[in-house]
Amino acid sequence: MNRHISEQYDTELAEIKARLMEMGGLVEQQLERGARALINHDVELAESMSSTENQINKLEVDLDEQCVQVIARRQPTAGDLRTLICVMRAITDLERIGDEAHRIARMARGMAREELPEDQYGAFRELNTMVARQLASALDAFARLDEKLANEVIQGDEVIDNQYRNIISSLKISMADNPNHINRSMNVIWAARALERIGDHAKNLGEYVMYRVKGEDVRHGGSS
Amino acid sequence: MNRHISEQYDTELAEIKARLMEMGGLVEQQLERGARALINHDVELAESMSSTENQINKLEVDLDEQCVQVIARRQPTAGDLRTLICVMRAITDLERIGDEAHRIARMARGMAREELPEDQYGAFRELNTMVARQLASALDAFARLDEKLANEVIQGDEVIDNQYRNIISSLKISMADNPNHINRSMNVIWAARALERIGDHAKNLGEYVMYRVKGEDVRHGGSS
Repeated sequence: MNRHISEQYDTELAEIKARLMEMGGLVEQQLERGARALINHDVELAESMSSTENQINKLEVDLDEQCVQVIARRQPTAGDLRTLICVMRAITDLERIGDEAHRIARMARGMAREELPEDQYGAFRELNTMVARQLASALDAFARLDEKLANEVIQGDEVIDNQYRNIISSLKISMADNPNHINRSMNVIWAARALERIGDHAKNLGEYVMYRVKGEDVRHGGSS
Repeated sequence: MNRHISEQYDTELAEIKARLMEMGGLVEQQLERGARALINHDVELAESMSSTENQINKLEVDLDEQCVQVIARRQPTAGDLRTLICVMRAITDLERIGDEAHRIARMARGMAREELPEDQYGAFRELNTMVARQLASALDAFARLDEKLANEVIQGDEVIDNQYRNIISSLKISMADNPNHINRSMNVIWAARALERIGDHAKNLGEYVMYRVKGEDVRHGGSS
């Protein structure tokens, strides 16, 4: 490749990565809003999320097509190809995180007429803080191809899973004790479940970093 | 490309598709087993699923690497590239379906000591039949690049979502009436949720077919 083409290619890759990070920022924003909507039973906030969701969906389709075009036109080496494939996978995960954040917000709608619980959703808020931190680290690790940070994200998923299981257990007990709060409890269960899945997607991002850096597939415990 | 290389390339693509269909068959088997384990509270059956799960996970990693290798070595045209990218996406969806099937089976473990409900999980079984049919059609549409069938799968997802919502509503009522069945009801809710997600993955497969056939992105209602 002559220098001109090579520079153009680098510019394209850099642009794709920049747009991916833009998408990551939007998704983080949606998570923050979705959780806030649920915690405050704020239907208005929940409904304000649609325009950003559309933006995320559009970015997904555009970025994806941009990756296909680059692969088809540039015929990248195996290394660059892996990068682009990781980006395409990350796009899918980010879009799904946006969906889950929206799902959390939807739960707020089902609770508009319910009163807030005494503990102000303490355990849920804790889980949300953990998941938001994981997502931020995962995006950071992806942007900088930071193996150490990616590994921390992968390991950290277990802590999230434990907190999630604790929430479910205590909500099951609470439903048995207060059948009249089953609707509210079920909504929180769905929301907690969505957070747990966002944690899984963050872990996926970490795994793509490891795959890219180590050039091997770390899914299914292929490496540690 | 001379004829020899071209034939070799076709053989590689055909092999990848054949292995993808093999993976699809294993995943269908897991769904059938997972649902049966839940409906009969059959812990032994649930536990027998691990070896197939490992097989699916191994196929995922291998097939994925095979696709990367073909893209890197053959530098396919945009059309073939789209096919390969669809295959890579389908691999991910199939693996996730396997995970969800396993999740359904895990619910059986939590119910070993519970008695079977009077209706023998009628609504759940109905949902399972619908989802299994969607998955079979989606795999079929993918294998034959059958646009009409793929479109039926995409449209059919709404019927599944409705049945799923009915199950959740009636289980919420049942939990309020019988707090001592909350554990069983929650397990069925998780299992129904897993079926609903499998339906989403089948829909994804349908969308990849449309994307491949029409060469445009039909996600997010980009086309109908």
